[in-house]
Amino acid sequence: MVSKNTVKFIKSLHRKKIRKQEQLFFVEGAKNVTELLLANFAVHQLLHTDKFRQQHPMLVEQCKGETLLVTPEELQQMGTFKTNDTALVVARMPDPDEFVVARGELALALDDIRDPGNLGTIIRVADWYGIEKIILSPQTAEIFNPKVLHASMGSFCRIRWKYADLLQVLPQSGVPIYGACLEGQNVHGLALKEEGVILMGNESRGISDELMPLVHHKISIPKFGTAESLNVAIATAVICDNFRRNKQFSNPTVPI
Amino acid sequence: MVSKNTVKFIKSLHRKKIRKQEQLFFVEGAKNVTELLLANFAVHQLLHTDKFRQQHPMLVEQCKGETLLVTPEELQQMGTFKTNDTALVVARMPDPDEFVVARGELALALDDIRDPGNLGTIIRVADWYGIEKIILSPQTAEIFNPKVLHASMGSFCRIRWKYADLLQVLPQSGVPIYGACLEGQNVHGLALKEEGVILMGNESRGISDELMPLVHHKISIPKFGTAESLNVAIATAVICDNFRRNKQFSNPTVPI
Repeated sequence: MVSKNTVKFIKSLHRKKIRKQEQLFFVEGAKNVTELLLANFAVHQLLHTDKFRQQHPMLVEQCKGETLLVTPEELQQMGTFKTNDTALVVARMPDPDEFVVARGELALALDDIRDPGNLGTIIRVADWYGIEKIILSPQTAEIFNPKVLHASMGSFCRIRWKYADLLQVLPQSGVPIYGACLEGQNVHGLALKEEGVILMGNESRGISDELMPLVHHKISIPKFGTAESLNVAIATAVICDNFRRNKQFSNPTVPI
Repeated sequence: MVSKNTVKFIKSLHRKKIRKQEQLFFVEGAKNVTELLLANFAVHQLLHTDKFRQQHPMLVEQCKGETLLVTPEELQQMGTFKTNDTALVVARMPDPDEFVVARGELALALDDIRDPGNLGTIIRVADWYGIEKIILSPQTAEIFNPKVLHASMGSFCRIRWKYADLLQVLPQSGVPIYGACLEGQNVHGLALKEEGVILMGNESRGISDELMPLVHHKISIPKFGTAESLNVAIATAVICDNFRRNKQFSNPTVPI
């Protein structure tokens, strides 16, 4: 049985303030926990059920942090999931990453994406489309928010990110900045090169006025129906797909 | 002030069982409420704040249902939103729609999409891409779930849908069935025609085994990175974008 103090401590990590203070965060569920254990994180505690140990004996055995056998009920008491019969892991936040966007590279920049689900989904999208670097404005959702980590489906382990003032860092990259907006050039009509930073704006107001002058190319997803807009994670995916589509085929070749 | 009975009644509509029994549902927030009031729904009750009435005086005046002036606190007490300083409307469920997918038309079929947020986002995507008809398997999330309606951002007013056994109705449509899966043909390499039903599978298991024989073309979104999969609403959007992209441009023409 897990101690009251452990329960209390993990519950305290639901709060951003405590996560920051302790420099610890947690993830839940088999998918995210196994991805984290296989990646390069310093594990503080692994709380797992008997089922999880039977499915992943080596991961539990080789874990360098404290390991505790718990029940699904205990996991549900500590975590944010309604049901969790596998594991929860507490890990140390990595040191802030430092990177620049290189020539010939495609990266993302997020201007105040507030919804944790959207941020997590965007991380998963970036990982699918082979986009390794994401620059996050300071007002973007916190990456260690449990909802972000959950929506990322393990992809947070494979993406590099940094929080930075976009007004400062975007001009430093020597690549084109593409700004997604409602009145840009139709991406279907552009021969997009796989180099640059794709800038996605806030859910309500889009790209902020002060960042607009940094954008070299305003781009838009064409609308064929009547919805006012697309969700920002959806728009990110469609734009990434348009950037990557020229990689393999210059023209659609197979009639169907 | 709103009566205790009204509060109690609207709170009871949070439950699917009561919605079905009463044949009533509710939507919240300015965007969804205004879209519903402008569309062809039978309004039962419109609960609005002073702010909403000032912004939309004609909508309140011309409303054929009962109208009640309420406070934001009362709206929050009755609804599902943390904050709502505009309106909540209770409306009658429309009669079940009957339609077939015509030649030259693009439609969606959803095989057990369980997450309400995903269903709502897919409805919004369909509305953006000019896809008017969606066929939902009986196990797909209920369209009148408040989370579905919220995520659809008003698009539920413009889309036609029906719940039906896909095994029965898919063969009846005389158009090709495209099944989205992980081991299909790369959509970037296909000259897709804008005719057919795009079948999207369940979040965990994909398209069910019994439906697979009905699929004429298995299609996939190519992966350039390492994520295991994409969220189903994201995948729907990317596939719709690929179907629609030939509408305006046979080839990307503008170098950028």
